[in-house]
Amino acid sequence: MKYCSSCGDIVSKRIPEGDDRHRHICDGCDTIHYQNPCIIAGSLPVYEDRVLLCRRAIEPAYGYWTLPAGFMENGETTLEGAVRESMEEANVQLHTLELYTMIDIPHINQVYIFYRGHMAKPEFSPGIESLEVELFDEKDIPWTDIAFPSVKTTLEHYFADRKKGLFPVRTDLIQRRKR
Amino acid sequence: MKYCSSCGDIVSKRIPEGDDRHRHICDGCDTIHYQNPCIIAGSLPVYEDRVLLCRRAIEPAYGYWTLPAGFMENGETTLEGAVRESMEEANVQLHTLELYTMIDIPHINQVYIFYRGHMAKPEFSPGIESLEVELFDEKDIPWTDIAFPSVKTTLEHYFADRKKGLFPVRTDLIQRRKR
Repeated sequence: MKYCSSCGDIVSKRIPEGDDRHRHICDGCDTIHYQNPCIIAGSLPVYEDRVLLCRRAIEPAYGYWTLPAGFMENGETTLEGAVRESMEEANVQLHTLELYTMIDIPHINQVYIFYRGHMAKPEFSPGIESLEVELFDEKDIPWTDIAFPSVKTTLEHYFADRKKGLFPVRTDLIQRRKR
Repeated sequence: MKYCSSCGDIVSKRIPEGDDRHRHICDGCDTIHYQNPCIIAGSLPVYEDRVLLCRRAIEPAYGYWTLPAGFMENGETTLEGAVRESMEEANVQLHTLELYTMIDIPHINQVYIFYRGHMAKPEFSPGIESLEVELFDEKDIPWTDIAFPSVKTTLEHYFADRKKGLFPVRTDLIQRRKR
């Protein structure tokens, strides 16, 4: 951020009065431009014993498998975001959705929120951001080709919880990989 | 938003190619400036049979009672945000925090995330954003002077769940009040 989105003047990074963090502040109109984490809303679509994965047609992680998920939009709920992304990426309709995982990824300023949802019928097809969409039994999950750690951990929770038949909301933290 | 924060040129609201929503797009450098919901992270501090509330020293809802909560910052987790806000607003330290409520408020593009936390000692004091901080028994909760619906619903869930001794994660939706 170099310019003020309100007045077009130069912004500089300073600590506002009464604050303890550097913010982008306009040198002209004094507007403070806060930057905050984003929510990624997604779903874990389930049909009988299988879960639905999408193979990504976009970067990052082109060609890898993911659950339907994307940036939550202004004016919608986390549930509506999850339903919208499921339709956009997999043309899949879900019912009886329930909050399932909330995953903090602080080094990229993201919080993933996945809802577990059921498919009435095995009907789906790739949206524009997917190369293919497929139902997987647990034994066939392409674990080494999963796009994101948040997807992997959500799938791991699901298969573990399914053995007990209980699906409490799970929280997780994903930290930067050590190099 | 009138000006591009990257190059300072004029932005206009248009639908980007492949999108279905109006976004602020720079007429000069074509940068798309997405706007997304914010997370408010907070806590429900519990000491023995009582819960801690703060009386707000700032607008909105000056003088009304709230739970410690505020905008989640980049680089922190939802839990860290809840802990930080508890310290800033009430100088209270919490242990064994657990995710408790997630509340969508789509008409103001906010998602509240409250953690239930325990106080080892009845030690607290007002931070700069609080007029006073106090522990309340259920029968003394100032229900008509609660600052925000998200706080009221979190307290209602808590006292109902406490009777059963079970605190599953609760999700809620708060919609615009009809006029």
